[in-house]
Amino acid sequence: MSEKLFNKISIIGFGFIGSSIARLIKAKSLANEIICGDINPEICEKAINLELADKAYTNISQAVRDCDLVILSIPAGAIKTIAEIISPHLKKNAIITDTSPVKQAIIKDISKFIPSDVNFVPAHPIIDKVFLTSNTDLGVFDNSWCIITPLMHTELKAIEKVSLLWDKFGSKIEIMSPEHHDKIFAITSHLPHLIAYSMVKTIAGLEDDIRAEIAKYSALDFQNITKAASSNTIIWRDIFLNNKEELLDILQEFTQSLTSLQTAIKNSDIDMLEKIKKSTNPKL
Amino acid sequence: MSEKLFNKISIIGFGFIGSSIARLIKAKSLANEIICGDINPEICEKAINLELADKAYTNISQAVRDCDLVILSIPAGAIKTIAEIISPHLKKNAIITDTSPVKQAIIKDISKFIPSDVNFVPAHPIIDKVFLTSNTDLGVFDNSWCIITPLMHTELKAIEKVSLLWDKFGSKIEIMSPEHHDKIFAITSHLPHLIAYSMVKTIAGLEDDIRAEIAKYSALDFQNITKAASSNTIIWRDIFLNNKEELLDILQEFTQSLTSLQTAIKNSDIDMLEKIKKSTNPKL
Repeated sequence: MSEKLFNKISIIGFGFIGSSIARLIKAKSLANEIICGDINPEICEKAINLELADKAYTNISQAVRDCDLVILSIPAGAIKTIAEIISPHLKKNAIITDTSPVKQAIIKDISKFIPSDVNFVPAHPIIDKVFLTSNTDLGVFDNSWCIITPLMHTELKAIEKVSLLWDKFGSKIEIMSPEHHDKIFAITSHLPHLIAYSMVKTIAGLEDDIRAEIAKYSALDFQNITKAASSNTIIWRDIFLNNKEELLDILQEFTQSLTSLQTAIKNSDIDMLEKIKKSTNPKL
Repeated sequence: MSEKLFNKISIIGFGFIGSSIARLIKAKSLANEIICGDINPEICEKAINLELADKAYTNISQAVRDCDLVILSIPAGAIKTIAEIISPHLKKNAIITDTSPVKQAIIKDISKFIPSDVNFVPAHPIIDKVFLTSNTDLGVFDNSWCIITPLMHTELKAIEKVSLLWDKFGSKIEIMSPEHHDKIFAITSHLPHLIAYSMVKTIAGLEDDIRAEIAKYSALDFQNITKAASSNTIIWRDIFLNNKEELLDILQEFTQSLTSLQTAIKNSDIDMLEKIKKSTNPKL
């Protein structure tokens, strides 16, 4: 057996991220064996047929057995249930990691089920290229950030192994606290998605003929602002609900900004936008 | 003198749109003479040096004399003043048109100053490609919409001549009422810009270190949602203030959608996004 980064890796959830990870592990020979765990039998079959996994199980407990690394790549809302299911079947000294865009809630959900000899290394790969690349592109994580938010008792060795894995995938690694992570990504990602869904909800409430014309004349700015609402609704519902506090905080700030602009328009305040420009970092 | 669409065209305001129009009129030989009117002497000089205009004046009354067509390509807030200035100097039977993204307020501002023998043909070219093309690109209006919102008493002949001009530029022409125009574009364009400015205003209120990290990790969705706020603030202030009613109406709808999603998140309503998806036209 040649010296690989891991002997046996289990990937639970074979969606876009899970299958991209499998493809990179195969292509870069980072493990001796890849196990797919997915409750959907069609996805398990596909993972085998595309040779992205050596074995595939709909029984998730089965899928983690004897694995050195378990990667949870499932919606945030499913993490708690899956953690409870796999917990008794984890290999001694195994490492668990995840790919969720929310961290505090995930850590809370997982922590109570993790055996003391298992290390959990929470991770969040930031993918900007979902719309630009196909799922078979090996460059999907190239030059993107992977944020790692270790727990107080996570062993350094485990953090290093997970970091090295993401480094091999092409990501740049950054370590930060789960609290800080959730605050930053509430702003850069979760709020923009919530705005996009709100915009789509607004359009949905208009009359049919107006909606047809909006589709006809929708310019780039409109498309840009609504694009995020075409994302998977289950994944995003779970993100919103699992980063509730930080998201509601920044949403309140945003609503205040919107209200102050609304008032400025009502009062014909001709300096309103100049004021924003002056107070803003030019990079934003 | 060869048979051109117009003999002498005056373009007031040589910004992105004004200069693009001049370049197309030259390239396609649509007029015998192009006059630039711009209060900025440097812009006038540039228009002559780049051979986009045959003559250029900072004195706007001078710039419209003897012209068959006057194109106002200036911020919405400047239209009223300019209309009053040029009114006594317009040629008999001249045509005035504009390029403003708001129509009802513009029509109100211009109408009282227009001599009875002059036809006003309000127009709104929709440019989606500002960020994609350089200002020297002759394809800037290719396949884009140009909305024309004629007044009750605008002569058909004048509408046809302005339509033909935009057709020669590569635009697709659509005729609609000014009211309908303002309602549609409040949704597809003005609200997205207002949201972008609100987002930037929100970021501006955060601590420096958080802002630096937002810049570092800002993903595509964040960039998409804030991009519109990099537009010219004077132009957009004028658009917001000159389409106040329609914009405040749709802003209220949007705020309601945002509030209902906020409540759903607070209450952990797991069906919230599914409900939006079901009620939405898949095209949006």
